[in-house]
Amino acid sequence: MSVLIVGSTALDSIKTPKAFNPKLLGGSASHAGVAASFFTDVNLVGVVGDDFPRKYTALYQQHGLDLAGLQVKPGKTFHWSGEYEINMNRRRTLATELGVFETFSPELPEAYRTTPFVLLANIAPALQHHVLDQMKKPKFVAADTMDLWLNIAMPDLLRLLKRVDLFVLNDSEAQQLVKEDNVVAALPKLHKLGPKYVIIKKGEHGSILSGPSGLFIAPAYPLKKVVDPTGAGDSFVGGLMGYLAGSKGPIETNLRRAMIYGSVTASFCCEGFGLTRTTKTSRADIEKRVKELLRISCV
Amino acid sequence: MSVLIVGSTALDSIKTPKAFNPKLLGGSASHAGVAASFFTDVNLVGVVGDDFPRKYTALYQQHGLDLAGLQVKPGKTFHWSGEYEINMNRRRTLATELGVFETFSPELPEAYRTTPFVLLANIAPALQHHVLDQMKKPKFVAADTMDLWLNIAMPDLLRLLKRVDLFVLNDSEAQQLVKEDNVVAALPKLHKLGPKYVIIKKGEHGSILSGPSGLFIAPAYPLKKVVDPTGAGDSFVGGLMGYLAGSKGPIETNLRRAMIYGSVTASFCCEGFGLTRTTKTSRADIEKRVKELLRISCV
Repeated sequence: MSVLIVGSTALDSIKTPKAFNPKLLGGSASHAGVAASFFTDVNLVGVVGDDFPRKYTALYQQHGLDLAGLQVKPGKTFHWSGEYEINMNRRRTLATELGVFETFSPELPEAYRTTPFVLLANIAPALQHHVLDQMKKPKFVAADTMDLWLNIAMPDLLRLLKRVDLFVLNDSEAQQLVKEDNVVAALPKLHKLGPKYVIIKKGEHGSILSGPSGLFIAPAYPLKKVVDPTGAGDSFVGGLMGYLAGSKGPIETNLRRAMIYGSVTASFCCEGFGLTRTTKTSRADIEKRVKELLRISCV
Repeated sequence: MSVLIVGSTALDSIKTPKAFNPKLLGGSASHAGVAASFFTDVNLVGVVGDDFPRKYTALYQQHGLDLAGLQVKPGKTFHWSGEYEINMNRRRTLATELGVFETFSPELPEAYRTTPFVLLANIAPALQHHVLDQMKKPKFVAADTMDLWLNIAMPDLLRLLKRVDLFVLNDSEAQQLVKEDNVVAALPKLHKLGPKYVIIKKGEHGSILSGPSGLFIAPAYPLKKVVDPTGAGDSFVGGLMGYLAGSKGPIETNLRRAMIYGSVTASFCCEGFGLTRTTKTSRADIEKRVKELLRISCV
């Protein structure tokens, strides 16, 4: 089955201690969309300006993303620039220029409204709602978020959590949202906000799923070198939802394996700036790492 | 087979945001020894003062620890006091009174010198050497350490690493020792220092083994509440070595499962002050959690 992915489609200028890469293809929908494309058909929903490089549109197309839902508006594409510290664990935003993203209203093509799987990648909760409002009985809805929305759009976010099946967030966001330092103790509190399934992402330390049949602890794929972690969380959830949508059988059964696929797609993301490594990856590369990750994490 | 464990035998006064517990039974050898005792016979090597409470000697005995190697000297038992911050992740030492530990020289009873498994729990590397010097062809030697020895006894520690099969340390110690922020990249550098097997402990994020057949990522047992993490690392390595010593078959094959047993013994340690929870644990409790941990961490 196919997956609809809405989120930001951006240009990212990324500085690390070793390099500076201006105007890379970025944004939560770009990372999640390309990650999901290895496993199933993807309907992309986003907005870009008329400055959006053709090579990036071509890159989407090479990955088979359906772009009927990608609006092109007069003006500038959303531009984020940020800088990573030496160990890649902390980053700070240098500049955010919203451009056409400021007035973005995701309008779904009619054909998108029956997409069975929906990933509301990181974007303002009001826009995530607006997408859901247009969907006709989706089979499975996942939402990602970021600390910004916890700070400025909490009521919208809390209302959204009652409408999704899976909520994905990172450990510090979980701690902030339910005022609980212990990740394991935070999980039941997150379920109380609505979602049947919750996944807490812990970066290099993997992720933890909580659902009706209990917990599942998924490892991250061990990387000797992280070039650029931007978009790793989006790639994780994109790979996960792509795998779920592309798999037969009950979601509950597939979710564990989907997390492993998410870990692996995220690992490729970290190995290059922006999407440069991910877009050079094949399904066979992914399967090889999945096999390896299972081998090194199961007794 | 049996395991010889040398390390500190101490009284710990532990302050957390919620409680203060003075003069608990503590020390690396106490934690590791009790953890190992669930799986095999333990020969304990350490020193206590004549103030050492009888109830603690009785506790060792209840766990079947052989105390022929536990010296009792006139003077005070080693006393450590420390304080944990609110999320239990950071601690600071309030006071360290060495007492009889200052002049400790571990002399092994003749019967101990042929113990097949040796755990050099956290203690000065010079003392770890002194124990090894007295051993007759041990089958498998593991060493633990702490940041203090990296700061004040590096030459001794480096020399020790050429004499052990397994070196266990935590992530920040690994980073300090080989000047490498990335844990995965630190592993080959640690092997170059001597040990065939290296385990890096990451607290609540589990641990990672590196050996001739590659990596193994072991999860921590997920705890909703950590009461006192003092001794968790010692309990991990004690449980691991106890399980290894008590198991048939090749060490390489048993090591993965041994890490799971280590994670579980460490989880009990964290659930009470000092050794209070561990000493109330049964082998059946451990087996139950091992089964659960395997179930929630394997696809």
